Amino acid sequence: MHFHFAVEQPDTACNARVGLLRTPHGDIPTPVFAPVGTQATVKTLAPDELVEAGTTLILANTYHLYLRPGANVIQRLGGLHPFMGWSGPILTDSGGFQIFSLESLRKISDEGVVFRSHIDGSEHFFSPEKAIEVQEKLGADIIMALDECPDPMNYDYNQAALERTHRWAERCLRAQSRTDQALFGILQGGIFPDLRRESARFLTSLDFPGYAVGGLSVGEPKDKTWEMLKVTVPLLPRDRPRYLMGVGSPEDLFEGVAHGIDIFDCVLPTRLARNGAVFTDEGRLNLRKATLAEDNRPIGEGCGCYTCRHFSRAYLRHLYKAGEILGLRLNTIHNVFFLLDLMRKIRAAILAGQFAVLKQSFLSRYKAVNDQSTRSQDLARRRGASSLSTLRGSTLRGRPKQRGV
Amino acid sequence: MHFHFAVEQPDTACNARVGLLRTPHGDIPTPVFAPVGTQATVKTLAPDELVEAGTTLILANTYHLYLRPGANVIQRLGGLHPFMGWSGPILTDSGGFQIFSLESLRKISDEGVVFRSHIDGSEHFFSPEKAIEVQEKLGADIIMALDECPDPMNYDYNQAALERTHRWAERCLRAQSRTDQALFGILQGGIFPDLRRESARFLTSLDFPGYAVGGLSVGEPKDKTWEMLKVTVPLLPRDRPRYLMGVGSPEDLFEGVAHGIDIFDCVLPTRLARNGAVFTDEGRLNLRKATLAEDNRPIGEGCGCYTCRHFSRAYLRHLYKAGEILGLRLNTIHNVFFLLDLMRKIRAAILAGQFAVLKQSFLSRYKAVNDQSTRSQDLARRRGASSLSTLRGSTLRGRPKQRGV
Repeated sequence: MHFHFAVEQPDTACNARVGLLRTPHGDIPTPVFAPVGTQATVKTLAPDELVEAGTTLILANTYHLYLRPGANVIQRLGGLHPFMGWSGPILTDSGGFQIFSLESLRKISDEGVVFRSHIDGSEHFFSPEKAIEVQEKLGADIIMALDECPDPMNYDYNQAALERTHRWAERCLRAQSRTDQALFGILQGGIFPDLRRESARFLTSLDFPGYAVGGLSVGEPKDKTWEMLKVTVPLLPRDRPRYLMGVGSPEDLFEGVAHGIDIFDCVLPTRLARNGAVFTDEGRLNLRKATLAEDNRPIGEGCGCYTCRHFSRAYLRHLYKAGEILGLRLNTIHNVFFLLDLMRKIRAAILAGQFAVLKQSFLSRYKAVNDQSTRSQDLARRRGASSLSTLRGSTLRGRPKQRGV
Repeated sequence: MHFHFAVEQPDTACNARVGLLRTPHGDIPTPVFAPVGTQATVKTLAPDELVEAGTTLILANTYHLYLRPGANVIQRLGGLHPFMGWSGPILTDSGGFQIFSLESLRKISDEGVVFRSHIDGSEHFFSPEKAIEVQEKLGADIIMALDECPDPMNYDYNQAALERTHRWAERCLRAQSRTDQALFGILQGGIFPDLRRESARFLTSLDFPGYAVGGLSVGEPKDKTWEMLKVTVPLLPRDRPRYLMGVGSPEDLFEGVAHGIDIFDCVLPTRLARNGAVFTDEGRLNLRKATLAEDNRPIGEGCGCYTCRHFSRAYLRHLYKAGEILGLRLNTIHNVFFLLDLMRKIRAAILAGQFAVLKQSFLSRYKAVNDQSTRSQDLARRRGASSLSTLRGSTLRGRPKQRGV
């Protein structure tokens, strides 16, 4: 059996649970956070650094890899694992989210979606069958159905998109030819409980080996995110892994776990790191801060990551101010380690019946940043889809987005 | 004894020699190539990667570190070694070369040189005494006298600058207060044999523990570089290390070693790497080449570096094309390893009495790139020092240069 999931211990007070996910490239203790390797590299990190940080699953982006270097190229080179030198489990998304975030660069029909590359403007066509074909060539352990990811606040659009997503899910299942990849279905339905319920009922009837909750962390108010999980997760089978796409801040991981989510991914730790922001138990620390100029302490006192074991805040601040690439990497190592370490603690707490205690204790100390403004901007951008007369890879509107941040 | 140098074996056919340089932070087998860590980081690399590549000496730039984060900051943080997490030997230049490359941003007198920061335009003053003070705060194992580095082709300027450089050398010696740093004198004299001889005679009379050949690899024709070494090196004491600043292509390292040089530094391997060019036994390989798209071989067949042991040319090409930071690092690891490995082979060959054989065999296979055009551009830029009415850190003319490339 290539793929197997079992819940090892459910929490008694909430929906949190510890499980084990078996894949052809290794076992994944859940709940798990997957760092994002959009272009077949978790930005700035080498595979051995991912291993050292405790990574057991990474995500790669089908959209990006299909365009560059191309799925056929990666297939001929043996697949994603040998290509990027990562021998652990990989999950690829379907490319859907990126394509739909291209807004005016794509045209959708029941058959599939025509879109233009953000790199060179070339035209491409993705259908459910094509999304599976490409992901089979990439060779990840977990692959995703092609879904339509609409503005989460628009009921009519979500209703129409949901039917399409469901038909596409069936086509994806039929198109699958490899038996060593687990194909997950993706639930949609925006912020509307009835649509969410309908999506859960329909997709679970197709008996996927795992389910993703899509269409969240894409601009909706955060209370709606949790409300949708509350509506959706109880309708999913207990013995299948549940994946919340695009979620990754420490406070959101706690909330997602509490709602019964097993898998998370997000660019947050890597992107923040490249912007000079690092996680501490007290909240995010901005390395630009002048007060760090002679701060000889590590980012996190007692943190076991490579960065904290070797370098001071003062040095990391210097690297950041001086525009040195090493700084981006050292920050990334720390942020990825921080989230993976948090997930380790969460798993241990669930096993010990102490999840609520850990959550309360962590959140009482950790000062969360309200990212609502960023999300609202994303939403406004997404809604205001106007014409883009020229194709420019580097324009804001013309670039595919990532969920969550 | 903090610092000691001994020639272990001279070559019988040329001036090449194998030696051992003892410093407070470790022994350095010579001839040695030192990767450049301008801003207290060898660009893209962490200290453990430098160790793995076989690095025994790195160079850091006094000019850059004085401006950012500041010598006092580094001193209060314990010096360069703990600051950057590198426990091996470090050499700092005096800042002179960078200051003089600022051209219209500086004003020179016998007392010293007033210059403006390329970062924020602020005014600073460096004297021989100040250069030593700053380098004592940084705490490198080998420090350099402040010298004036003129256009190598201008006789009158070189003659005047030489006298100043010599007076400054005396002042540097008098200013030195730490006993655990080796202060090297820097010979100047452009491409003029009589000035070179005069510089060698004068500076050796001051009895420095080591000598750098400065004012070369700064735009002069390459045959002049070697002619000057031929004139200069025989006048230097046999028992002192000789340092050729700014030299680092494989073919130039062979030539420098043959002329009796013990220490080299250059940004070439790191800078080329970030431009997507990597060393092979056949010459430089440009990773942009379309023919590498599905090339599953490592950069160098049989190369023992981390990059070649784990990644294909196809993957490195993908990372470069996709603008991924990991690619810059993996290329840098390879290029640094390649030069350090070459130096290992050179030392072994000298010990075995086979240096000429190795040189001939390597150079018959290695297709050298003529960098003359780049050098000529640098020279033209340097000569055409016109007014720079506004101070802009990012203008080409306003940025300090590195020797050699």
